[in-house]
Amino acid sequence: MTTSSLNFPAQDRAFLEPHLPPTTPDHHASPLLPFTTLTFATSLDSSIAAAPGTRTVLSGPQSKAMTHYLRSQHAAILIGVGTAIADNPGLNCRIAGVGGYGSPGLSGQPRPIIIDPSARWAFAAASKIFELVRSGQGRAPFIVIAEGTVPAQAQREVLEAHGGKFIVLPAVGKRVEWRAVLECLVREGLRSVMVEGGGEVINSLLETHGQGLVQSVVVTIAPTWLGRGGVVVSPERRVEGAVAVPTPRLTDVKWYPFGEDVVLCGRLRAE
Amino acid sequence: MTTSSLNFPAQDRAFLEPHLPPTTPDHHASPLLPFTTLTFATSLDSSIAAAPGTRTVLSGPQSKAMTHYLRSQHAAILIGVGTAIADNPGLNCRIAGVGGYGSPGLSGQPRPIIIDPSARWAFAAASKIFELVRSGQGRAPFIVIAEGTVPAQAQREVLEAHGGKFIVLPAVGKRVEWRAVLECLVREGLRSVMVEGGGEVINSLLETHGQGLVQSVVVTIAPTWLGRGGVVVSPERRVEGAVAVPTPRLTDVKWYPFGEDVVLCGRLRAE
Repeated sequence: MTTSSLNFPAQDRAFLEPHLPPTTPDHHASPLLPFTTLTFATSLDSSIAAAPGTRTVLSGPQSKAMTHYLRSQHAAILIGVGTAIADNPGLNCRIAGVGGYGSPGLSGQPRPIIIDPSARWAFAAASKIFELVRSGQGRAPFIVIAEGTVPAQAQREVLEAHGGKFIVLPAVGKRVEWRAVLECLVREGLRSVMVEGGGEVINSLLETHGQGLVQSVVVTIAPTWLGRGGVVVSPERRVEGAVAVPTPRLTDVKWYPFGEDVVLCGRLRAE
Repeated sequence: MTTSSLNFPAQDRAFLEPHLPPTTPDHHASPLLPFTTLTFATSLDSSIAAAPGTRTVLSGPQSKAMTHYLRSQHAAILIGVGTAIADNPGLNCRIAGVGGYGSPGLSGQPRPIIIDPSARWAFAAASKIFELVRSGQGRAPFIVIAEGTVPAQAQREVLEAHGGKFIVLPAVGKRVEWRAVLECLVREGLRSVMVEGGGEVINSLLETHGQGLVQSVVVTIAPTWLGRGGVVVSPERRVEGAVAVPTPRLTDVKWYPFGEDVVLCGRLRAE
């Protein structure tokens, strides 16, 4: 692999500090849950992609470096199967100085987690994520599947040969519960996770607001409209009894102009 | 009327300066078109209201003062009929020191323009906008209707008794063209206009991007999601021939953190 490394200057790192996972585990309240960061980039009309199954570059090169820096600060990064299929993602960290990009070993490389209840992702040894494992520039993924799903044997072999594995979780209608996913990460020794997409993952996690599952939210907004028909971040509204549940609002909000974009950091309040 | 005045401090005004209408008319390129500012407040999921026909307070008190300051800097303010019906709006300027709020006369009070092709707005002398006219705190509206529409005589009398009028414009399928609306404002001596909403007005004006009709865009974004089902700012995508027309992107972008919100100022590029 010849993918070059990225720099995220120290002066840009300062604003993210209060929103990063704690460096000492006891600073995080729950022993059962990881420190969870939700991060994504949208247009002004809250689209993360122009259409389902496509990749849209919304934000500038600075934002890309920021994403990779954030990856270096989390034990795991998590995406949904739709993003895995659409993007053939590397899911590693290319910040200069991490393992594989200037340092030996895999220090600073997060563990990729793919939520794929039905084992739809048709990866192969040639997929980018495994290329990076072979070149010492990334970790093999853990793929969360639903109880009862049987992955193809060839895929299991590829995955396990690279040091990855399938993790089986109980599912309701082929949907795994966020709390179960997050608790299983802690059982795997992963004390922090950055959730990156796609739309279904982000929306469903926002819909859990009030449950205290998400600690930190980092949204990059680009000054453009993608127009109707995009993949939109907008949670479903919930009604409990006859009462509309308030929609999520961030607290401890900071806005950081960042090139042409703005970065919003905040917290989701637990009820 | 006992509605109190608002203050928008000088230090907050500075960031808006480059985005305001020119104070000398010759600084604006077109002799036929006004300087047009598009301004609105959205949630992170680009909703301006939780549901059609409802008013949602999204942004903080600072943003309200900013809106009124912007109104003082424009000769006219413009809304669509849906917003007029939903909000019973005053459409005046309450910044301390303008006419009716510390000064005699109506200096600094913008002319309200309502786009109402079918004359649907069932206003009466008791409507807030006419109360403000009678108390010397605002101007009477000009209501743009489509050729062939005949407003009720009682309404015409109320409107004209307060110094307002109907303006008749050609329409295609009960829709008036933005260029015709804007040109008619200049003919009325109104050299700048701030377009405030609602969703249909904002989206249809964004869809004209590339025509050079909008000079300035000011969007306030609140750190909350309103959830699916809101009134969303998101232009329709256009295809010309077989080619997708690029969606609007702002240039000369500045982001100003403003309380819990952020204010985005930019320009729509003319093609």
